[in-house]
Amino acid sequence: MIYFDNAATTKPDEECLKAAEKYLYSEFYNPSALYKGGYGLQREIVQSRNNILSLIADRENFDLIFTSCGSEADNQAIFCGGRRGNIVTTAGEHSAVYSAVNELKQRGMEVRFAKIGVDGSVDTEDLLRLIDERTSLVSVIHVNNETGAINDIVKIAKLVKAKNRYCLFHSDGVQAFGKIAFKLSKEIDLYSVSAHKIGGIKGVGALIKRKGLILKPYIYGGGQENGLRSGTENVFGIKNFEYAALKKFKKIKENYSKAHSLKRLIIDNLDRSHFKIISGEFSSPYILSISAEGLRGETLLHEADDTGLIIGTGSACSSNEKKRFSRTIIACGLGEKIADGVLRLSFSSENSEDEALKAVKILNEITKNRKAVMSL
Amino acid sequence: MIYFDNAATTKPDEECLKAAEKYLYSEFYNPSALYKGGYGLQREIVQSRNNILSLIADRENFDLIFTSCGSEADNQAIFCGGRRGNIVTTAGEHSAVYSAVNELKQRGMEVRFAKIGVDGSVDTEDLLRLIDERTSLVSVIHVNNETGAINDIVKIAKLVKAKNRYCLFHSDGVQAFGKIAFKLSKEIDLYSVSAHKIGGIKGVGALIKRKGLILKPYIYGGGQENGLRSGTENVFGIKNFEYAALKKFKKIKENYSKAHSLKRLIIDNLDRSHFKIISGEFSSPYILSISAEGLRGETLLHEADDTGLIIGTGSACSSNEKKRFSRTIIACGLGEKIADGVLRLSFSSENSEDEALKAVKILNEITKNRKAVMSL
Repeated sequence: MIYFDNAATTKPDEECLKAAEKYLYSEFYNPSALYKGGYGLQREIVQSRNNILSLIADRENFDLIFTSCGSEADNQAIFCGGRRGNIVTTAGEHSAVYSAVNELKQRGMEVRFAKIGVDGSVDTEDLLRLIDERTSLVSVIHVNNETGAINDIVKIAKLVKAKNRYCLFHSDGVQAFGKIAFKLSKEIDLYSVSAHKIGGIKGVGALIKRKGLILKPYIYGGGQENGLRSGTENVFGIKNFEYAALKKFKKIKENYSKAHSLKRLIIDNLDRSHFKIISGEFSSPYILSISAEGLRGETLLHEADDTGLIIGTGSACSSNEKKRFSRTIIACGLGEKIADGVLRLSFSSENSEDEALKAVKILNEITKNRKAVMSL
Repeated sequence: MIYFDNAATTKPDEECLKAAEKYLYSEFYNPSALYKGGYGLQREIVQSRNNILSLIADRENFDLIFTSCGSEADNQAIFCGGRRGNIVTTAGEHSAVYSAVNELKQRGMEVRFAKIGVDGSVDTEDLLRLIDERTSLVSVIHVNNETGAINDIVKIAKLVKAKNRYCLFHSDGVQAFGKIAFKLSKEIDLYSVSAHKIGGIKGVGALIKRKGLILKPYIYGGGQENGLRSGTENVFGIKNFEYAALKKFKKIKENYSKAHSLKRLIIDNLDRSHFKIISGEFSSPYILSISAEGLRGETLLHEADDTGLIIGTGSACSSNEKKRFSRTIIACGLGEKIADGVLRLSFSSENSEDEALKAVKILNEITKNRKAVMSL
């Protein structure tokens, strides 16, 4: 079985699972409890917070709030950051941002969507044009979850702040964190990350915030996470996240090169009479979006699955929307025929060149056969 | 080490951890993915949903939404249920409800708090008096997390609906679920539960809702959980929750009797010249609230900890509030001196009579010694 749907979720790293196992089996206390067992876990969480934060930010200027997932982090950023005026975002956001801003729109707030290019990256000029003195929040995805387009959020945030220094800048970094070497700059106020996209488990994410930024909690209660996210801390998940992040960052450049080679190998061997490459030249090496124009991506996905190759169509998180075409691919201006044939291959450092070659062979064959069956 | 802080969190059941382990190590797919591995997990989640729901409700009339914790479930109930008019709740709520309604108050909504009695149970007459035609939501905790007082929510919900049939009735059932035999009646619209209080892991909870009730999601995104809670599903946590719940419910009456005996044993052997019993006669057998009037509970907690006995003071979830006295105990009308000396002992079916006897001996001794030191 070849697993090329790592942007949907990764196989949890066994070493990191084992390392965190004691937080399930023996160190199970409530970290808010006042006795040694509880208090000790509070210190463990602080260590995880500091270690994860240090990987992408200057700890003197940023804080980290553990959440239950990337979506919750995005929701806290949007609902607690966008509280007046208008919100500016892009047409290529993950559904966690897209659905949240649409909810705010329903509640009467003005939401403006910047155009994206054919590769899925934001049209920065259009984004800047939409920002005015009443903009309270700008949200731009770091790496597009469907096409892999990388938005240079450090540069974009600087331009955004030059236009309106009072608005907040948020970025969903779920597909970038642990994959693209990068440091948060002072113009970025909020940044969302997730554990299960980098070998951690499902059920843990984090919202990184600039220190000094006064943010409301989204989940109220016992005041955990310095009052910014209530609910008994998921210690096992948090420690596992820390271990997975440290491991990924240790080899971030090496893994990047590896993913780059895999992606290159597939692009070079795909039968271009059947497949169009959607991902741009400078997209994340971890995501490859292609389209078998004239065929249905979903059909090919099932055929690949039967042959031992696991791939995605658009984002797994969009499959519940029950819409035939990917909102992002349509926003890229690629049209319904290309959108219908979209397949997403996404890699991890665990994948091999052998798998890439086998995968491309399967894709070429099933597409050829399907076209023959349909007499196209 | 004797662990008597099971209301804060329980030691995860090893059998249930092992049974769910495959969802970490091999069945790790994204349940929203369209290939067999993903789709199969969606069915697993449906099975968990049905199995957990069947334990306390008629599945034809209720749905279940998996959340990341009991606090999130409470927040969804409060913020999505209480959207107009006024909210009526009690002075004895868990901080997840208490802080959420206070946030709504800050936003301009009227919130009314019903009195509680000396045992922590709600004054039903006062509650009903506060409800009027503008009440949109009533929230009453099922089992008080500090005193163990059981509110007869089936009866209360009926009375509430007789006064205003349009308002929603929510109950935080975190300390009742899997402990007190009980079925949801049609007057209960929303009910919150948590996994880690019954041998499941931290990071999973659920909001049970009456079918037909139109509820908004609280976390927006990919539309998981039938559109009511977005974010990649925590499959390992959900399956583990299912197993833990099934196991607890299988012996719910037997466990209840056991907890009852333990609590009785402690009450009968506590030195009553040092301790006042706060929990009422008909409180949950799983929670025993006592007070060493004139001493500080926190000091005794640390001394007990050093002697190998782990207990709580108030709720672990309140320790972040950094207030000296428990809000609930003060609301019981017991005064600051009693509130200062409060200790909470909370049991699980894993505890033994031997542990209870040892615990009571430790408590009697440390209290006597402390009083001697203070020459009281």
